[in-house]
Amino acid sequence: MAQAAVSLQSENSRVRVDFQTHPERYRHWTLSVDGPIATLKMNVDEDGGLRPGYKLKLNSYDLGVDIELHDAVQRIRFEHPQVRSVVLTSGKDRIFCSGANIFMLGLSSHAWKVNFCKFTNETRNGLEDSSRHSGLKFLAACNGTTAGGGYEVALACDEIYLVDDRSAAVSLPEVPLLGVLPGTGGLTRLTDKRKVRRDQADLFCTLVEGVRAPRAKEWRLIDGHAKPQQFAAAVHKRATELAATSVRPAKAVGVNLTPLERVIDDTGYHYSTVDATVDATTRTATLTVHAPRTPQPTEAQAIHALGAKWWPLAMARELDDAILMLRTNELDVGTWVLKTRGDAAAILDCDATIQALRDDWFVRETLGMLRRTLARLDVTSRSLFAVVDAGSCFAGTLFELALAADRIYMLDAQGGPQIVLSEMNFGPYETVARVSRLAARFYAEEGPIALCRAAVGQPMSAGEADRLGLVTSRPDELDWEDELRIALEERRTLSPDALTGMEASLRFGSGETLASRVFGRLSAWQNWIFIRPNAVGEAGALKVFGTGNKAKFNWERV
Amino acid sequence: MAQAAVSLQSENSRVRVDFQTHPERYRHWTLSVDGPIATLKMNVDEDGGLRPGYKLKLNSYDLGVDIELHDAVQRIRFEHPQVRSVVLTSGKDRIFCSGANIFMLGLSSHAWKVNFCKFTNETRNGLEDSSRHSGLKFLAACNGTTAGGGYEVALACDEIYLVDDRSAAVSLPEVPLLGVLPGTGGLTRLTDKRKVRRDQADLFCTLVEGVRAPRAKEWRLIDGHAKPQQFAAAVHKRATELAATSVRPAKAVGVNLTPLERVIDDTGYHYSTVDATVDATTRTATLTVHAPRTPQPTEAQAIHALGAKWWPLAMARELDDAILMLRTNELDVGTWVLKTRGDAAAILDCDATIQALRDDWFVRETLGMLRRTLARLDVTSRSLFAVVDAGSCFAGTLFELALAADRIYMLDAQGGPQIVLSEMNFGPYETVARVSRLAARFYAEEGPIALCRAAVGQPMSAGEADRLGLVTSRPDELDWEDELRIALEERRTLSPDALTGMEASLRFGSGETLASRVFGRLSAWQNWIFIRPNAVGEAGALKVFGTGNKAKFNWERV
Repeated sequence: MAQAAVSLQSENSRVRVDFQTHPERYRHWTLSVDGPIATLKMNVDEDGGLRPGYKLKLNSYDLGVDIELHDAVQRIRFEHPQVRSVVLTSGKDRIFCSGANIFMLGLSSHAWKVNFCKFTNETRNGLEDSSRHSGLKFLAACNGTTAGGGYEVALACDEIYLVDDRSAAVSLPEVPLLGVLPGTGGLTRLTDKRKVRRDQADLFCTLVEGVRAPRAKEWRLIDGHAKPQQFAAAVHKRATELAATSVRPAKAVGVNLTPLERVIDDTGYHYSTVDATVDATTRTATLTVHAPRTPQPTEAQAIHALGAKWWPLAMARELDDAILMLRTNELDVGTWVLKTRGDAAAILDCDATIQALRDDWFVRETLGMLRRTLARLDVTSRSLFAVVDAGSCFAGTLFELALAADRIYMLDAQGGPQIVLSEMNFGPYETVARVSRLAARFYAEEGPIALCRAAVGQPMSAGEADRLGLVTSRPDELDWEDELRIALEERRTLSPDALTGMEASLRFGSGETLASRVFGRLSAWQNWIFIRPNAVGEAGALKVFGTGNKAKFNWERV
Repeated sequence: MAQAAVSLQSENSRVRVDFQTHPERYRHWTLSVDGPIATLKMNVDEDGGLRPGYKLKLNSYDLGVDIELHDAVQRIRFEHPQVRSVVLTSGKDRIFCSGANIFMLGLSSHAWKVNFCKFTNETRNGLEDSSRHSGLKFLAACNGTTAGGGYEVALACDEIYLVDDRSAAVSLPEVPLLGVLPGTGGLTRLTDKRKVRRDQADLFCTLVEGVRAPRAKEWRLIDGHAKPQQFAAAVHKRATELAATSVRPAKAVGVNLTPLERVIDDTGYHYSTVDATVDATTRTATLTVHAPRTPQPTEAQAIHALGAKWWPLAMARELDDAILMLRTNELDVGTWVLKTRGDAAAILDCDATIQALRDDWFVRETLGMLRRTLARLDVTSRSLFAVVDAGSCFAGTLFELALAADRIYMLDAQGGPQIVLSEMNFGPYETVARVSRLAARFYAEEGPIALCRAAVGQPMSAGEADRLGLVTSRPDELDWEDELRIALEERRTLSPDALTGMEASLRFGSGETLASRVFGRLSAWQNWIFIRPNAVGEAGALKVFGTGNKAKFNWERV
């Protein structure tokens, strides 16, 4: 097994993970749509693991399974606008989902485990994001054993129904079975979302066999249950009721999510509006986002006709993919330089259109995609430096990139770059902490926020932006290159781990929510456990699972 | 150095740490009182380390220094009631404090580092607790270099003054120098408390040399500064102003914190009202708290006369010490069984007295001591099982022990044990999340809390307590012993690390505050970093500090 671990780790770094897929290529899920209700059926192909070395038995998942789930939800959002509720269920008999594949976890490097969990968390938060912002409701129809990550994905749904066949149970057996946490949202959603009493949660999380209906209902672990004969009807009835609460359109033509225009080569990842150039020597990536190159429509009909080529959506999808590709495939690249190019006015026009048409379903979904993509930046464990240089266009929506960054460098020069705020900086792109990046920057203090609001639409020089607290440093032309070079050089000498912890702390100073606590308290503990000998040592619980050997623990409590 | 590390680690587990001290025995601090202002002067004895192997140069600290600080603050609270503001400063020239001793950290085991940081955090939170609840204000008078943990202790004060001598600076150089976080509150207080803009915080935390006045003021890192000649006068003026805002009494006779009545033997730690018995075989401790054995006074004068022997204070001090002793000296003991013995009515009488006299300074300080002691339980990385058995008296204040526990087992028998709520369960003992344990248990839902309030003062059987959601399990006499035995046996087979992460997540499901984020997001990240090779490996930053060698990092970002 040690041998396999080594080969899988080098595998991790050699073969690029790709997050793009299509329902026709799914191996693990089927998506079917019946009027306002979509059904996402999980039927994992045992031999369809993303990496060699493990079998995806019992509807267990790896990153590949999650990539398909993520894609399927995106398709529902855009290609099936009439869908108002989604039933998540399983195509296997007597088993809903048994969670993350344990052999995959046992074989994976620390970085792989952490990245896998992060993407899983983002996908699950995305379900809640769509429920909250777009009225797309999710119902977990647990038609059998619902264990570990299987129950965690159910927890991310609006409601959970469990078949009452005297055998099916929900469970979080990670602690007793594996010596790790239900770390992709499980513990946090038990308390923050479902408000399960904490002593019952404690019992539940140490019961390998889990809890069956109706006790699961009593403990708030599920919302309802039904006998096998009535289960499908009960689920359909509830899905119909949930659909009735939705603001999604009854009749609308979907927008096809056409394949991304993407070229991958030795220099990086290149898209129509986004470019990610990787410099392996300096371990730095430059992410450049281009403003629209052509006039964008302002009427709903024309926007729908443009579909996936509408700049805001094209840019969001490309940026999202670039973030995921860099994060997963370029582990050593610790600093991302965020740049923009093009015409600020074109962005502000798009912002105005989004504001004006925000009740249109497609505009709303595009806004959601932008919001979730920007939220990925917040939890990206890379140093983010925004560079406002000549030719840049940090305006409105694109200024969110700067607000997401750890630092903002702006060239201070006569006729130099300018930044512009738009109404889009004051709310629509809330972070997972449910606050706008601008409000978070100023800790919701009224004075500085009012000054910024008064400046909406006005191009600002470095001096003006500095006066409003919107830049970190504004070197003049004489100092610009040196200061930037030194800042980047210094950054890349620092401990990657310390930077990750520091950035995760400073970026979330504005309060915690369920979602931010998943990335903060829960993920940080899980990451700690993921590197402790009690989990991943030769006799650690995660390593020995399935071997017949018992884990050996160092009993010290830390 | 590897050799030294091994010997220090075995040292850690062999020599018992003692948290009891007295100003006469201080090696590192002097406490002086001048009217309403106390001055705590740090003047660390290089050769006074708690463990061999390092010198405490440059006013750096180890656990022993922090134990004295903790004791000194306790003395001020109780023995010097007329003190209304405390000036924290240094007795060394041009240096306030350079933080935790790095060589000590480099030599320490993972558990030692984590425990050290936890106690440090609790002491610092204690300063803020006293400021908030007792009007005891703290002013950091930084008369020279204020680095790392030195700045972190200043951050825990109400205000920070820095001498402006063109050399003194405040700094958090942990990330660039040591590859770890400013993890004892630093990052969290920068954002949550001082609302330092996060990009400026990012710059600040990567600047080894730190920031001098007046820029430190501009960035909100300090509250004021003065030239060396004016510094003492400026500090005294501000301390006087802070004192004027205090509710502490102008004239009052202090209560002497007499030495604890404590016997330590092979079976554990034994006090007058608290007993902690350790069973090494089952890795279980039984913490039993006794109700008052004699009638307690109900008038302020008599209570003051009784002083440290007043049951609420004696019990709080003994429980506090027992928690610290078990935590630090019995690392393998993973489960604590919480029991009570004695007369419930005697506790309820004390509760009524505390309620009636809560504006009396000594009662208020005692309540604060109880609150902070109970808060230690919440962040204790041990499984806590409350056992409500025959002879127990979980009433009012002592029921908080049960509410702090992960599970509550109550014997269900005719004439069996009863529990009783008092008004003290509805607010005064708020956790660091600033919510009562009872409200947290029910996620602030009105219905169940109202039912509990209606039951105040009424002894409840197991059945009644269960109906109100106050017990986890209530076996009858037939099942009692077996169920309890099995629950304890099962618990101790589980991974200590997974339990720590699970309990930390479930205990703080009621929202986050600055203090809870210090223990959650920040400490969890720090613990992760503390075990990563980039910090503690042979070429890790923490290990090579001071050797002249450069740290070697694995550049993977996780």
